[in-house]
Amino acid sequence: MTRYQHLATLLAQRIEQGLYQGGERLPSVRALSQEHGVSISTVQQAYYLLEQQQLIVPYPRSGYFVRTRKASPPIPAMSRPVQRPVEVKKWGAVLELVQARQDPNLISLGSSQPDLTQNTLKPLWKQLQRVGQRQDPSSFMYDQLAGTPLLREQIARLMVDSGCQLSAEDIVVTSGATEALAVAIRAVANPGDIVAVESPVFHGILQILCGLDIKVIEIPTDFTNGISLEALELVLEQWPIKAVLVVPHCNNPLGFIMPPHRKRALMTLAQRYDIAIIEDDVYGELAYEYPRPTTLKSMDIDGRVLLCSSFSKTLAPGLRVGWVVSGRYFDRVMHAKYTNTGTTAICTQLAIAEFIRQGYYQPHVRRMRSLYQRNLETFACWLRYYFPEEICVSRPQGGFVLWVEMPEYMDGVQLREHLRATANIHIAEGSLFSASGKYRHCLRMSCSQPWSNDMEKTIATIGAAIKGMLLTYQKNVPV
Amino acid sequence: MTRYQHLATLLAQRIEQGLYQGGERLPSVRALSQEHGVSISTVQQAYYLLEQQQLIVPYPRSGYFVRTRKASPPIPAMSRPVQRPVEVKKWGAVLELVQARQDPNLISLGSSQPDLTQNTLKPLWKQLQRVGQRQDPSSFMYDQLAGTPLLREQIARLMVDSGCQLSAEDIVVTSGATEALAVAIRAVANPGDIVAVESPVFHGILQILCGLDIKVIEIPTDFTNGISLEALELVLEQWPIKAVLVVPHCNNPLGFIMPPHRKRALMTLAQRYDIAIIEDDVYGELAYEYPRPTTLKSMDIDGRVLLCSSFSKTLAPGLRVGWVVSGRYFDRVMHAKYTNTGTTAICTQLAIAEFIRQGYYQPHVRRMRSLYQRNLETFACWLRYYFPEEICVSRPQGGFVLWVEMPEYMDGVQLREHLRATANIHIAEGSLFSASGKYRHCLRMSCSQPWSNDMEKTIATIGAAIKGMLLTYQKNVPV
Ligand SMILES: Cc1ncc(COP(=O)(O)O)c(C=O)c1O
Ligand SMILES: Cc1ncc(COP(=O)(O)O)c(C=O)c1O
Repeated sequence: MTRYQHLATLLAQRIEQGLYQGGERLPSVRALSQEHGVSISTVQQAYYLLEQQQLIVPYPRSGYFVRTRKASPPIPAMSRPVQRPVEVKKWGAVLELVQARQDPNLISLGSSQPDLTQNTLKPLWKQLQRVGQRQDPSSFMYDQLAGTPLLREQIARLMVDSGCQLSAEDIVVTSGATEALAVAIRAVANPGDIVAVESPVFHGILQILCGLDIKVIEIPTDFTNGISLEALELVLEQWPIKAVLVVPHCNNPLGFIMPPHRKRALMTLAQRYDIAIIEDDVYGELAYEYPRPTTLKSMDIDGRVLLCSSFSKTLAPGLRVGWVVSGRYFDRVMHAKYTNTGTTAICTQLAIAEFIRQGYYQPHVRRMRSLYQRNLETFACWLRYYFPEEICVSRPQGGFVLWVEMPEYMDGVQLREHLRATANIHIAEGSLFSASGKYRHCLRMSCSQPWSNDMEKTIATIGAAIKGMLLTYQKNVPV
Repeated sequence: MTRYQHLATLLAQRIEQGLYQGGERLPSVRALSQEHGVSISTVQQAYYLLEQQQLIVPYPRSGYFVRTRKASPPIPAMSRPVQRPVEVKKWGAVLELVQARQDPNLISLGSSQPDLTQNTLKPLWKQLQRVGQRQDPSSFMYDQLAGTPLLREQIARLMVDSGCQLSAEDIVVTSGATEALAVAIRAVANPGDIVAVESPVFHGILQILCGLDIKVIEIPTDFTNGISLEALELVLEQWPIKAVLVVPHCNNPLGFIMPPHRKRALMTLAQRYDIAIIEDDVYGELAYEYPRPTTLKSMDIDGRVLLCSSFSKTLAPGLRVGWVVSGRYFDRVMHAKYTNTGTTAICTQLAIAEFIRQGYYQPHVRRMRSLYQRNLETFACWLRYYFPEEICVSRPQGGFVLWVEMPEYMDGVQLREHLRATANIHIAEGSLFSASGKYRHCLRMSCSQPWSNDMEKTIATIGAAIKGMLLTYQKNVPV
C-alpha cells in the first residue's frame, strides 16, 4: 500500500466511524500534511482517491466536504394538500419568475435553466450553422405537422433507452414540453374538467391547466414513492377526473424517481378508472441511475399514456423543441398542435437531429448527469453549512433542482421579496407549486450552474436572510 | 418617334379599342414582324415597352397576353352565409391540405406557401448561420416571454409603414401568426363564446376557433368593401359577440383590401358594441399599392385591437416567427403565450432581426410584391384560357392566392378528390373556408410559384377536369 492509499484508508475509516460527518468540511491539505507528516501531494492524491470513491466532494477554493449520505439534512415528509378541485391563480408570481430568468442584474436561482457552457454542446451550434450554410429552401418552408421525419426518427431511437419501442410516426414534435403538455391536456380534457396532479407540482403545469380552464386536484406526493396512489384512488372514487398528470422521473420540484412497482400500480389504477395518464419526462434522461428509469409509456398497453418531453433540460431550452407520444389520442393531438402553433420551426429540429445522429447526444447527457449530480451535492453541503439547522432538503435522484423546506411558520414569499430587494437574488417560493396555497414555507432552488465563489456568497446571503427571519419570528412569539 | 415606339402605340390603341381583349393572347413576335415589315428585335422592344406600361403580360414560352383589367373573368358576388353561430368541423379536409404541402409526389396549389427561391432571402440564411457560428449560450437559453428585444425593436420599426407608432414593449413575439391568433383569441374570448368572422375565411382561423371551443358567426364579405358592416351590426344586435376577427389587407382567400372609410366604420362599430377586433395582417406587407394600407391597429384609440402577424408570407414560414400587438389585453396575451409554448426560439428571431436591421427586408418584400403580382396576372390569364367560361376569378390587391368560383352546382370536394386520384394535383375546395358548408363550388389556388410549363400543364389538367364535370352534370340534368 502506498503512502497516499494508506492515508485515504485512514480517512475513510474516520468518515465511516462518524468522526467526520456528512456535509462537514474536512481538514485542509496543509493541516493534514502536518498532522501525518506527509507531503502536500500525498494528501492531494489521497483526497483525489476518496473523491473517486464518492466518499468526499471537492470544495471550490481548497479542501473537501464529506459527501452526505442517508443522513442529514432530513428530507421533507409527505405533502398533505387539500383534496378538492381548485382553480389555479398566482400568475403574477410566475411571471416575475419568468422575467427574472433574463434579468442580468439578478442572480436567479428560481428558474430551472440547464448549464449551456459545456463543450459537448458545441457540435449542436455547429449543426445550426450548417443548416444556414446549406441555404436549402425546404428547411424554411412549412414543416410537416408532426415534425421533421429526420428528428422524429432520432427521438424514436433515443426512447428505446426508456423502454419504448416506437416509430417516427408515433411522435409529434412540439415547441418545447410546454406545447407538448398543452396539446396533450387539450386532447384529453375540456374546459371545466378536472385533472389530478402531484403536490407540489411544477408551476408551469398549473399555469397551462389554468390557461385551458381546467381545474386541478392535488394529490399527496412523497420522496420515496411519488404520487400517493391511495389518495389518488380515493379522489378517483369521488370526482370525475379526466387524467392524471405526473412527472415520475427526477420530479420537478421534489427530485424523486417513482419506483417501478408504483408505476405499474398507477397504470392499473388508470385502467380501472379509465382515465388518461400524462407523463412529463423532461428530466428523465438526467436520472443519476443507469440505465435510466423506464417510462409509464413503455408499460402502456392500451394507448392511454401521453408522454411529453423536450430537449430543454438535456440540450438547450431556447431551441424550443419538444415532443409528445400520444397513443390513442393521436388525432386530437394533431389537431391541437395545428391550432396551437401550426407547425414547429425546421432549422432547430434539423440541428438537433444531426447532433443526435452523429453520436453527440449520449456523451453530452452523460456528462451533464454527473455534473449536475456533483453540483447538487455541493449545493446541499453548502446549504447545510449556511442555512439554519431546522431546514429539510430534498435528495434528488436526477435533474438539477433542490426543494428546501423551512419551519412551517416561515414565509417564502416574504423571503423572496426580501432577497430581491436587498441582494438582487431571485428564488422560487414553494407556494408557486400549489394551486391551493400550500408550501409557503418552502423554496425551490436551481443548481445547474457550476459552483463558484459568487454562488457561495449567494447561498450565505440566503442563509443569513432565513436565519434573520427565523429570529424575528421567534422574538415575536409570546413564550 | 422610333420604329418600336410607333409599333407600341399602334398596339396600345388596338388594345384600347378592344381588338385585342383582356386575357387574350397577342400575335407572336414573328407574325407581327411579318405583318408590319419590321425586325424581330423591333417587335420585341415594342412588347417590352407595353409590358412596362402594364398593358401586356409576358407569356412563358413566347409571346404575350393582354393584361386583364376591369373586365373578364368576372369577380364573384358578395357571399351570403347563414347568420347564426356554428361550430367548426372539417378537420379531416384541412389535415389533408396540410399534409399535401410536403408530399413530394403532389403538385400542391392548395396551401399558401411563399416563394423561397429568391436571392434576396439569402442574407437571412446567412444570419442564421452566424447565430450558430457565434456559439453564444445566451442565444440558446429561455428567451424573454415577450420575445427577443432586438427583434421586437425591428418589428416596431417596420410597423411604422402601416401607420403604427409602437415601441418594442408593445409587441409579443409568437410561433407564427397561428400562435398570435390563438393567444389573441384566448385573451378576448372563453370557451362557448362567439366570434364574428369574414365569409369566406381562412380555414386555419376556423380551426383555431374550433380548437378553443369558440363558436363562429360568418358575416357576408365582398370584394370591394370587405366584411359587411351592415350585416355585422345586425349580428351584434342579436348575439353576444366577443370579438370580430378580420383579414383586412390582401384578404385570404378573397384578396381585397378594405377601404379606409370602411375600416374607420368598423372601429366605430366595435367601440359602440364594445367588442375586441382581432386584425390578421399576415399579407399586409404584400399589398401591391404603395404605401401599404394602414392597419386598424393604427386607428385604435382605446386598445381594443389585437394585431396578429408573422414573417411566414413575407420571409419564410418554416422560421415560425410571428407577433401580436395586444393593447389593453397585454397581460392576458402574455399568460396565454406562456401556457401555449412557454417562449419562442431565439436563434430564428435573432436571424430575422439582423436581416431587417441590415436593410435586407424592404428590398426583398418589394421584389416579392411585384413577382406575386405578375404571377397572379399570369395565372389569371391562363385560367381564362383553360377553364370553362362560366368561372369567376378574384382580382387580388396583394398576396398570392386566387379565389375561383365555379357554377353553383359544381362540387369542389369531388373535384379535389378527382384531381388527386388522377393527376396528383391538390387544390383547396371552397368549403374549407366556411363553418356552415358554403362555397362547395369554389376553389382557392396559391400562385406564389413562378410560372412554368409544368404549371401550364397543371392548370390545363384542372381546367379539363372542371369542364368534364360540368359536362357530366349537364348530361344528367333532365331538359
Ligand atoms: C417538469 C417540467 N415540465 C415541463 C417544463 C417545460 O419545458 P419546456 O421548456 O421544454 O417547455 C419544465 C421546465 O421547467 C419542467 O420543469
Ligand atoms: C390569413 C392567414 N392568417 C394566418 C396564417 C398563419 O400564418 P403562420 O404560418 O405565420 O402561422 C395564414 C397562413 O396561411 C393565413 O393565410
